[in-house]
Amino acid sequence: MARRAAGRFIGWFRPLRGAGQASLQLQLYAAIRAGVLDGRLPPGERLPSSRALGEDLGLSRNTVLGAYDRLVAEGYLAARAASGVYVAEDVPADLGRASPGQAGPASFSQRGRRLIAAAPELAGHELQAARPFMVGLPALDEFPLATWRRLTNRRLRRSDLALFGSGDAQGLPALRQALAGYLTEARGLNCLADQILVVSGAQQALDLVGRVLLDPGDRVVVEDPGYAGAREALAAVGARIEALPVDAQGLDPEDIARLPTPPMLVAVTPSHQFPLGGTMPLARRLGLLALARDTGCLIVEDDYDCEYRYGTPPLPALQGLDGGERVIYVGTFSKVLFPGLRLGYLVLPPHLVAGFVRAKATADGHAPSLPQAVLADFIAEGHLAQHVRRMRKLYRERQQALLAALQRHCGRWLQNGALRVGPAEAGLHLVAEFTDGRDDRALAAAAAAQGLMVAPLSRYGQRRQLSGLLLGYAAFTPAQIEQAVQTLARLLK
Amino acid sequence: MARRAAGRFIGWFRPLRGAGQASLQLQLYAAIRAGVLDGRLPPGERLPSSRALGEDLGLSRNTVLGAYDRLVAEGYLAARAASGVYVAEDVPADLGRASPGQAGPASFSQRGRRLIAAAPELAGHELQAARPFMVGLPALDEFPLATWRRLTNRRLRRSDLALFGSGDAQGLPALRQALAGYLTEARGLNCLADQILVVSGAQQALDLVGRVLLDPGDRVVVEDPGYAGAREALAAVGARIEALPVDAQGLDPEDIARLPTPPMLVAVTPSHQFPLGGTMPLARRLGLLALARDTGCLIVEDDYDCEYRYGTPPLPALQGLDGGERVIYVGTFSKVLFPGLRLGYLVLPPHLVAGFVRAKATADGHAPSLPQAVLADFIAEGHLAQHVRRMRKLYRERQQALLAALQRHCGRWLQNGALRVGPAEAGLHLVAEFTDGRDDRALAAAAAAQGLMVAPLSRYGQRRQLSGLLLGYAAFTPAQIEQAVQTLARLLK
Repeated sequence: MARRAAGRFIGWFRPLRGAGQASLQLQLYAAIRAGVLDGRLPPGERLPSSRALGEDLGLSRNTVLGAYDRLVAEGYLAARAASGVYVAEDVPADLGRASPGQAGPASFSQRGRRLIAAAPELAGHELQAARPFMVGLPALDEFPLATWRRLTNRRLRRSDLALFGSGDAQGLPALRQALAGYLTEARGLNCLADQILVVSGAQQALDLVGRVLLDPGDRVVVEDPGYAGAREALAAVGARIEALPVDAQGLDPEDIARLPTPPMLVAVTPSHQFPLGGTMPLARRLGLLALARDTGCLIVEDDYDCEYRYGTPPLPALQGLDGGERVIYVGTFSKVLFPGLRLGYLVLPPHLVAGFVRAKATADGHAPSLPQAVLADFIAEGHLAQHVRRMRKLYRERQQALLAALQRHCGRWLQNGALRVGPAEAGLHLVAEFTDGRDDRALAAAAAAQGLMVAPLSRYGQRRQLSGLLLGYAAFTPAQIEQAVQTLARLLK
Repeated sequence: MARRAAGRFIGWFRPLRGAGQASLQLQLYAAIRAGVLDGRLPPGERLPSSRALGEDLGLSRNTVLGAYDRLVAEGYLAARAASGVYVAEDVPADLGRASPGQAGPASFSQRGRRLIAAAPELAGHELQAARPFMVGLPALDEFPLATWRRLTNRRLRRSDLALFGSGDAQGLPALRQALAGYLTEARGLNCLADQILVVSGAQQALDLVGRVLLDPGDRVVVEDPGYAGAREALAAVGARIEALPVDAQGLDPEDIARLPTPPMLVAVTPSHQFPLGGTMPLARRLGLLALARDTGCLIVEDDYDCEYRYGTPPLPALQGLDGGERVIYVGTFSKVLFPGLRLGYLVLPPHLVAGFVRAKATADGHAPSLPQAVLADFIAEGHLAQHVRRMRKLYRERQQALLAALQRHCGRWLQNGALRVGPAEAGLHLVAEFTDGRDDRALAAAAAAQGLMVAPLSRYGQRRQLSGLLLGYAAFTPAQIEQAVQTLARLLK
């Protein structure tokens, strides 16, 4: 236990050398205090002994004791006789601010702590290697790299030097034009290039929605289980999250109508509910739009995985339906092209466009122009449509391979109902739900030890705790899938 | 007046066709309401007549009248007998929220309106063509494009496919390593790669500082005149801005010490004060660090234009001095390489790193990996140092050309003291200050009509209203500079 805490410290605390003992003590004090305030050191967590921590960090034991003493005196830590030092159970919310005029290492603001606490756990600080069944990862090795390189080289020329200067906060006009055409044609959107704001991925889209439209305490409906990135981005700006359960048809607008207070915003994934995979039928879509009209709320439509459907054609996006002027449509190229591109977009109701563009300008100026130009060319010359067609075929084959492997190696749990595989109509992953109360986090940890990367379904739940595994298949060959399912079957036993 | 307002509308309002009159009326209502709430239509502004606006927008007069009537009824506009319709003088702050449960087009939150109001004016929605004397623009046509293309192609290969996946929220390790070496050597920083957070430019660096460290109402000291981007980013998160006057040595720490309440944060440009160009001497640097230690505040050091000094070598950065553990160092590649790259960085005190990385992850995931890899190679292989050396020589020549041209064509104002040229030790622009009370905005407007782009100095002031022009010279040849100064001299007459 103490070792675990010490290990954590060493991960993020690194004393600045070349200063005296007083400074080292202050740095350690500040690091622990920051950990307590932002939740990395949760209440009740035991701290390592001063001797052990001193050894781990290469500090004298007195330096560590000095820092502990001050933290106990200030109420961040509590000393229990004969059993060591713990994080205090009740750290007052405003304890962290150095009051102006009071010396001491500056720390995070209340807003900052909310932002930090809501943030996704950052898995180490490394580029993660692709391992089955990583979720949300497309088949990078099938990406038309030669085409992308050719288009990139065509733009890396003197004649395109304007792309090297300051750009348009709303996004490169050529890209917005290409996107408007693509979205109108492929997704039935009702939009002009002027309604599009180019951002650096769906995460920034959701962050801007939260910053521009919500005040702390405003109510937001999200899906349960649902996409953690949306919930976290909206919680980070102080929204009050109402997680409503989804069924095979996604969110039910009737459930929203029954809330005592209507929300300001409803965030949904109607094309392919994340993570369960349901598709919202037209009746619910129209019901949701009617609810938005009646209550004055806005809908955030994350058109997640809309490109990858394997049977029925996709339903038109909410944004393109009657009443769609209350919809903010969010899209990203992370899964259609590649996550490292960091380009996404919002399609906004006309009266919100100018405000969002200004907010984007304040947040980070504008998206880089050169990749926008390459992407615009990629769309306009038909490469995007072609790539999506190719990948749809490939991913369907890989999905079939996964389903077949599950039948082969996990057939008995499928037959006795202990394992249930979710809808396979769309997307880059399948959900295998455990109906026998199995601990999915323990299984995911065991799988990780075997080199597999399966996300536990319970991670995505709020009030509902479903147990299961998310199995991303898009980035893996049938042979890799076969082998990984064999490993999984051994673990299930 | 009415024409101006109408022109503004047409700039940002575009009715969605294909709907009935009721919908067009609602759209216009929502657009005007949004303009009132976010300050684009200031109190007392006269609106165009319903006839004129209808003609401009291609709407029937009744549609416009219907929208006006509703806005007057709701208190956004006021009708004055026989003189038309005006924006109401006193729009209550919470009028803009559609209360939950109340139908009507949703609008911006209070936070959103603050964010939008603080945002820099977006000059149209176009990439701006380079025109003398655009400020902050490097010589793009001198950028080593062939090298950049070669390095880009080297990374656009199958063996680097990891760069196409999800990246490190803190920034690509190779880039952080290269940066730590560069900053330690070139700027005297005391930093490890682990203290660096890669962001998408200085604007995002300042936005994150505000979001993570400040709560609404927290006091922040900025320079007067000063960099609008910093002031706006910090005001956008609700900070209370204390603008303190700078002299030829930048900000005086004594002025901060005299404030009735010490600030949480002090944002400075010690290398090359923006816009006036002074360099903060060592005594003031140490004074500022002592003040930070005594009061517990943090210093944000925007090491603006540190690479381009033309005489004396640069002073070490605040961050590298004793007490530098209270400094957040901000840097960008917008001026050293090119603005469209959108890569910058923060060097953070160790105890703040983990929190900032999480905030970056929530804000937009991470900076795109591919340009980070190219930049890392560019630095590691010595191209950055070489480019800076070449540009330092070139910019110095261009500065000399500008000074000589000013002597030739504006000599009499320089001699009689009506025009004063600021320090020429560093940077990409010179300041020509008017001491005769001339209206710099009028002159900048007249220059714009002649194809020149000169920023009025008064734009950067808060409580101080200096008059003058910022003359960016880095991107222009001596011949272009000569011609532009001739034009300017004609306008000065």
